[in-house]
Amino acid sequence: MSEHPTTGLDELVHQRHRLGILTIAAEVKRVEFGYLRETLELTGGNLSRHIAVLEEAGLLEVEKGYDGKRPKTWVHITPSGRRALAEEMAALRALVARHDS
Amino acid sequence: MSEHPTTGLDELVHQRHRLGILTIAAEVKRVEFGYLRETLELTGGNLSRHIAVLEEAGLLEVEKGYDGKRPKTWVHITPSGRRALAEEMAALRALVARHDS
Repeated sequence: MSEHPTTGLDELVHQRHRLGILTIAAEVKRVEFGYLRETLELTGGNLSRHIAVLEEAGLLEVEKGYDGKRPKTWVHITPSGRRALAEEMAALRALVARHDS
Repeated sequence: MSEHPTTGLDELVHQRHRLGILTIAAEVKRVEFGYLRETLELTGGNLSRHIAVLEEAGLLEVEKGYDGKRPKTWVHITPSGRRALAEEMAALRALVARHDS
Protein backbone atom coordinates (compact mmCIF):
# COMPACT_ATOMS: atom_id res chain seq x y z
CA MET A 1 0.00 0.00 0.00
CA SER A 2 1.47 3.39 -0.93
CA GLU A 3 1.67 5.96 1.83
CA HIS A 4 -1.23 8.30 2.28
CA PRO A 5 -0.17 11.94 1.72
CA THR A 6 -1.31 12.96 5.23
CA THR A 7 1.27 10.64 6.81
CA GLY A 8 3.89 13.01 5.33
CA LEU A 9 2.51 16.00 7.23
CA ASP A 10 4.19 17.24 10.41
CA GLU A 11 2.00 19.13 12.91
CA LEU A 12 4.95 21.40 13.69
CA VAL A 13 4.54 22.93 10.22
CA HIS A 14 1.01 21.80 9.33
CA GLN A 15 -0.76 23.61 12.20
CA ARG A 16 -2.60 26.37 10.34
CA HIS A 17 -1.15 29.41 12.10
CA ARG A 18 2.42 28.07 11.91
CA LEU A 19 1.84 27.25 8.24
CA GLY A 20 0.71 30.85 7.74
CA ILE A 21 3.77 32.27 9.52
CA LEU A 22 6.16 30.11 7.50
CA THR A 23 4.55 30.75 4.11
CA ILE A 24 4.65 34.52 4.67
CA ALA A 25 8.23 34.39 6.02
CA ALA A 26 9.29 32.38 2.96
CA GLU A 27 8.14 35.18 0.64
CA VAL A 28 10.25 37.98 2.09
CA LYS A 29 13.68 38.62 3.60
CA ARG A 30 12.15 39.27 7.00
CA VAL A 31 8.67 40.00 8.29
CA GLU A 32 7.54 42.26 11.10
CA PHE A 33 5.49 40.89 14.02
CA GLY A 34 2.59 43.34 13.61
CA TYR A 35 2.24 42.48 9.93
CA LEU A 36 1.98 38.76 10.74
CA ARG A 37 -0.52 39.43 13.53
CA GLU A 38 -2.84 41.39 11.25
CA THR A 39 -2.47 39.23 8.16
CA LEU A 40 -3.08 36.01 10.07
CA GLU A 41 -5.77 37.53 12.32
CA LEU A 42 -4.05 36.39 15.52
CA THR A 43 -3.69 37.90 18.96
CA GLY A 44 -0.17 38.96 19.90
CA GLY A 45 0.02 36.24 22.56
CA ASN A 46 -1.06 33.50 20.20
CA LEU A 47 1.37 34.66 17.50
CA SER A 48 4.22 34.84 20.06
CA ARG A 49 3.58 31.27 21.15
CA HIS A 50 3.63 29.93 17.60
CA ILE A 51 6.78 31.90 16.75
CA ALA A 52 8.45 30.47 19.88
CA VAL A 53 7.60 26.91 18.80
CA LEU A 54 9.07 27.52 15.33
CA GLU A 55 12.15 29.27 16.75
CA GLU A 56 12.73 26.42 19.23
CA ALA A 57 12.60 23.96 16.31
CA GLY A 58 15.12 26.05 14.34
CA LEU A 59 12.69 26.93 11.55
CA LEU A 60 12.58 30.67 12.28
CA GLU A 61 14.93 33.22 13.79
CA VAL A 62 13.72 36.25 15.73
CA GLU A 63 15.41 39.68 15.64
CA LYS A 64 14.57 42.49 18.04
CA GLY A 65 15.40 46.04 17.09
CA TYR A 66 14.04 49.53 16.53
CA ASP A 67 12.16 51.24 13.75
CA GLY A 68 13.10 54.84 14.66
CA LYS A 69 12.30 54.90 18.37
CA ARG A 70 9.74 52.10 18.29
CA PRO A 71 10.82 48.63 19.38
CA LYS A 72 10.06 46.06 16.71
CA THR A 73 10.33 42.32 16.28
CA TRP A 74 11.09 40.69 12.97
CA VAL A 75 11.28 37.04 12.05
CA HIS A 76 13.05 35.35 9.19
CA ILE A 77 12.90 31.80 7.96
CA THR A 78 16.00 29.57 8.25
CA PRO A 79 17.25 27.07 5.64
CA SER A 80 15.71 24.29 7.82
CA GLY A 81 12.45 26.23 7.80
CA ARG A 82 12.50 26.42 4.00
CA ARG A 83 13.12 22.68 3.76
CA ALA A 84 10.32 21.86 6.23
CA LEU A 85 7.91 24.13 4.37
CA ALA A 86 8.88 22.60 1.01
CA GLU A 87 8.12 19.11 2.40
CA GLU A 88 4.76 20.27 3.71
CA MET A 89 3.91 21.86 0.35
CA ALA A 90 4.87 18.65 -1.48
CA ALA A 91 2.53 16.64 0.77
CA LEU A 92 -0.29 19.18 0.32
CA ARG A 93 0.21 19.19 -3.45
CA ALA A 94 -0.07 15.37 -3.46
CA LEU A 95 -3.17 15.51 -1.27
CA VAL A 96 -4.93 18.08 -3.45
CA ALA A 97 -3.98 16.17 -6.63
CA ARG A 98 -5.38 12.96 -5.14
CA HIS A 99 -8.59 14.72 -4.09
CA ASP A 100 -9.05 16.33 -7.51
CA SER A 101 -8.40 13.12 -9.47
CA MET B 1 -5.29 43.46 2.34
CA SER B 2 -6.61 40.21 0.89
CA GLU B 3 -7.07 37.31 3.28
CA HIS B 4 -4.22 34.92 3.74
CA PRO B 5 -5.20 31.36 2.63
CA THR B 6 -4.45 29.91 6.09
CA THR B 7 -7.19 32.05 7.66
CA GLY B 8 -9.64 29.88 5.65
CA LEU B 9 -8.44 26.68 7.29
CA ASP B 10 -10.46 25.08 10.11
CA GLU B 11 -8.53 22.89 12.58
CA LEU B 12 -11.54 20.56 12.75
CA VAL B 13 -10.75 19.46 9.18
CA HIS B 14 -7.14 20.65 8.82
CA GLN B 15 -5.68 18.49 11.62
CA ARG B 16 -3.62 15.96 9.65
CA HIS B 17 -5.25 12.75 10.85
CA ARG B 18 -8.78 14.13 10.44
CA LEU B 19 -7.80 15.39 6.99
CA GLY B 20 -6.61 11.87 6.18
CA ILE B 21 -9.84 10.27 7.43
CA LEU B 22 -12.00 12.68 5.45
CA THR B 23 -10.03 12.44 2.20
CA ILE B 24 -10.18 8.64 2.28
CA ALA B 25 -13.87 8.62 3.25
CA ALA B 26 -14.62 11.00 0.36
CA GLU B 27 -13.20 8.48 -2.15
CA VAL B 28 -15.45 5.53 -1.29
CA LYS B 29 -19.01 4.73 -0.24
CA ARG B 30 -17.84 3.68 3.21
CA VAL B 31 -14.52 2.77 4.76
CA GLU B 32 -13.68 0.19 7.40
CA PHE B 33 -11.97 1.18 10.65
CA GLY B 34 -9.02 -1.23 10.25
CA TYR B 35 -8.27 0.07 6.77
CA LEU B 36 -8.13 3.67 8.05
CA ARG B 37 -5.96 2.65 10.99
CA GLU B 38 -3.38 0.97 8.75
CA THR B 39 -3.42 3.48 5.93
CA LEU B 40 -3.06 6.45 8.26
CA GLU B 41 -0.61 4.64 10.59
CA LEU B 42 -2.68 5.40 13.70
CA THR B 43 -3.40 3.48 16.87
CA GLY B 44 -7.00 2.34 17.28
CA GLY B 45 -7.49 4.70 20.23
CA ASN B 46 -6.18 7.70 18.35
CA LEU B 47 -8.29 6.90 15.28
CA SER B 48 -11.41 6.43 17.47
CA ARG B 49 -10.91 9.84 19.05
CA HIS B 50 -10.58 11.62 15.71
CA ILE B 51 -13.61 9.79 14.30
CA ALA B 52 -15.61 10.81 17.38
CA VAL B 53 -14.66 14.48 16.83
CA LEU B 54 -15.76 14.30 13.18
CA GLU B 55 -18.97 12.43 14.03
CA GLU B 56 -19.82 14.95 16.76
CA ALA B 57 -19.40 17.75 14.20
CA GLY B 58 -21.68 15.93 11.73
CA LEU B 59 -18.95 15.38 9.13
CA LEU B 60 -18.90 11.57 9.41
CA GLU B 61 -21.39 8.87 10.34
CA VAL B 62 -20.36 5.63 12.01
CA GLU B 63 -22.00 2.25 11.32
CA LYS B 64 -21.43 -0.84 13.43
CA GLY B 65 -22.11 -4.27 11.95
CA TYR B 66 -20.67 -7.67 11.16
CA ASP B 67 -18.47 -9.05 8.40
CA GLY B 68 -19.43 -12.71 8.78
CA LYS B 69 -19.08 -13.21 12.52
CA ARG B 70 -16.55 -10.44 13.05
CA PRO B 71 -17.78 -7.13 14.43
CA LYS B 72 -16.75 -4.26 12.17
CA THR B 73 -17.01 -0.49 12.18
CA TRP B 74 -17.42 1.55 9.03
CA VAL B 75 -17.56 5.27 8.56
CA HIS B 76 -19.01 7.30 5.75
CA ILE B 77 -18.75 10.99 4.97
CA THR B 78 -21.87 13.18 5.21
CA PRO B 79 -22.85 15.98 2.80
CA SER B 80 -21.57 18.45 5.45
CA GLY B 81 -18.31 16.51 5.55
CA ARG B 82 -17.94 16.81 1.78
CA ARG B 83 -18.57 20.54 1.92
CA ALA B 84 -16.06 21.04 4.75
CA LEU B 85 -13.44 18.99 2.89
CA ALA B 86 -14.06 20.93 -0.34
CA GLU B 87 -13.49 24.22 1.54
CA GLU B 88 -10.28 22.87 3.06
CA MET B 89 -9.05 21.71 -0.36
CA ALA B 90 -9.84 25.12 -1.89
CA ALA B 91 -7.77 26.84 0.84
CA LEU B 92 -4.90 24.36 0.39
CA ARG B 93 -4.97 24.82 -3.38
CA ALA B 94 -4.73 28.61 -2.91
CA LEU B 95 -1.88 28.18 -0.43
CA VAL B 96 0.13 25.88 -2.70
CA ALA B 97 -0.49 28.17 -5.71
CA ARG B 98 0.73 31.17 -3.70
CA HIS B 99 3.82 29.27 -2.54
CA ASP B 100 4.63 28.07 -6.07
CA SER B 101 4.19 31.49 -7.69
